[in-house]
Amino acid sequence: MPQLYIGNKNYSSWSMRPWVLLKQAGIPFEEVMLRFDSFDTQSHFKATVQAVNPVGKVPVWVDGDLAVWDTLAIAETLAEQFPDKALWPRQLQARARARSICAEMHSGFTALRSHCPMNIEARLPEVGQLLWRDKPAVRADVARLAAMWGGLLDAHGGPMLFGDFSIADAYFAPVCMRINTYALPLPAAIQAYVDRVTALPGVQAWITEALAEQDFLDFEEPYRLAR
Amino acid sequence: MPQLYIGNKNYSSWSMRPWVLLKQAGIPFEEVMLRFDSFDTQSHFKATVQAVNPVGKVPVWVDGDLAVWDTLAIAETLAEQFPDKALWPRQLQARARARSICAEMHSGFTALRSHCPMNIEARLPEVGQLLWRDKPAVRADVARLAAMWGGLLDAHGGPMLFGDFSIADAYFAPVCMRINTYALPLPAAIQAYVDRVTALPGVQAWITEALAEQDFLDFEEPYRLAR
Ligand SMILES: N[C@@H](CCC(=O)N[C@@H](CS)C(=O)NCC(=O)O)C(=O)O
Ligand SMILES: N[C@@H](CCC(=O)N[C@@H](CS)C(=O)NCC(=O)O)C(=O)O
Repeated sequence: MPQLYIGNKNYSSWSMRPWVLLKQAGIPFEEVMLRFDSFDTQSHFKATVQAVNPVGKVPVWVDGDLAVWDTLAIAETLAEQFPDKALWPRQLQARARARSICAEMHSGFTALRSHCPMNIEARLPEVGQLLWRDKPAVRADVARLAAMWGGLLDAHGGPMLFGDFSIADAYFAPVCMRINTYALPLPAAIQAYVDRVTALPGVQAWITEALAEQDFLDFEEPYRLAR
Repeated sequence: MPQLYIGNKNYSSWSMRPWVLLKQAGIPFEEVMLRFDSFDTQSHFKATVQAVNPVGKVPVWVDGDLAVWDTLAIAETLAEQFPDKALWPRQLQARARARSICAEMHSGFTALRSHCPMNIEARLPEVGQLLWRDKPAVRADVARLAAMWGGLLDAHGGPMLFGDFSIADAYFAPVCMRINTYALPLPAAIQAYVDRVTALPGVQAWITEALAEQDFLDFEEPYRLAR
C-alpha cells in the first residue's frame, strides 16, 4: 500500500492537499503522520522525513521504491497513475488553466500564507479584521482569489472550480480553511464555493481529524498563547 | 504560431526556463519580449503582460486561445502536447523525481534566488566570495544542489541530470548562470555539469541574446551601479 507522509492536520496546509485529493478520488493509501515537534535539524520530524525526502518537508508520497516530494509533483504523478480518476480536468484548456492556478498557489499568495497560517481549530475573526485593515497585500491576495474563483465558477458552472472536483480544488482547500479561521470577507458567490469545499467529504474527514489532535504548537501560533 | 512572452534575457530567470526547453526540443514558437521597464502597476510591462496573465508575470505561453502562465504549468502542458519529445524522462521513477526537483526549485532555493539574482552579462566573483563567507543559507542551497545533481548524475550516468536533456535541466539552467556569475564553488564533477548546461545550444542562444541586450536595469542590480 502506498504511503502519504504528512504533518499535523491542524496546521499542515501542504499535507492537506494530496490527502484530500486521495480521499476525494477514493485512492487507497496508508497515512504516516509525523508530528511537528519542531523544524530544527535535531527534531524527530526532520530526522524521520529526511529518510524519504532530502528536502526535509511533508508531504511525501512513497510507493514502493518511488518517493515523490512536493504537492505538485505528487499531484502530477497521481494524475498519471490514475488516468480514469480525471484528477486534472479532461479538457485541454481547462487542464492548462488548472495547472496555471495551482502553480500560482505553489509560489504565490505569500501575504495570505504568512499572515494567515492554517489553523483549522482556531476561530480568529478579530485577527482577520485587523489584517484586513492593515495589510493591503492580504487584501490583494484575497481579491485575486475572488477574481480567479469567480471567473472559473462562471465559466464552468460550478460546483467546483472546473465543474467536477479536481486537483485545483484540493489545492485551494487549505486556503478555504484560512478564510474560515480568519473570517476574511468575500462576495456571497465566492463564499458559497468556500462552503462547498468545506463540506466535501474528504475535507470534512481532514477537519474532524484535525480537531481531534488537540496538539498546540506554539511555533505555528502567532496569534494564540494556548488553545 | 504559439507565442512565449518573456522578460529581459539578461535578468529573467523564469523566462529562460521554457525558452531553453523549447529551443532544445526544437519546438517552433514566436518570442514576445516585454522589457522590464519596472514592476509597478503603472508600468508598460505590467499593462502588457496582464492582458494575457492576470498574475502579471512572465513567462506566459499563448497558443491560440490557450494562455498558460507559470513555468511549471507551461512545462507540463508542453510535455503533454509533444509526447514524442520526451520533455520529461520516459521512465516513471525518473519522471517523478524530475517533477520533485523542479517543484523544489519552484518554491525553494530562496537564499540563492534573493542573494544571487540572475545577471548573465555580469561577472561578480568577489560578491560571490562575500556571500559564501557571510550567508550560510546560500551555502546550504549550493550544498543541496551539489547533492541533488551529484546523485542524479551518478544514477543516470550523465551528461544531463536524467541522461538525456529534460525539463529538469532547463529548470536548473538559470541556476547554472548564477553559479557562473558569482563563481560559487562546486566539486569538479558538479562544475562539469554546469559547464555542459552552459554549452547547450539552447542556453548559448539565450546567453548570446542576453549579452546583446545591453539594457541596465537598476532594480535588478543590487551589486552594480552601471555596466
Ligand atoms: N513546496 C512544498 C512545501 C512543503 C512544506 O513547506 N511543508 C511544510 C509543512 S506544511 C514543512 O514540511 N515544513 C518543514 C520546514 O519548513 O522545515 C510542497 O508543495 O509540498
Ligand atoms: N512562479 C512563476 C514566477 C514568474 C516570475 O516571478 N517572473 C518574474 C520575471 S523572472 C516576473 O514576471 N516578475 C514580475 C513581478 O514580480 O511583478 C513561474 O514559475 O513562472
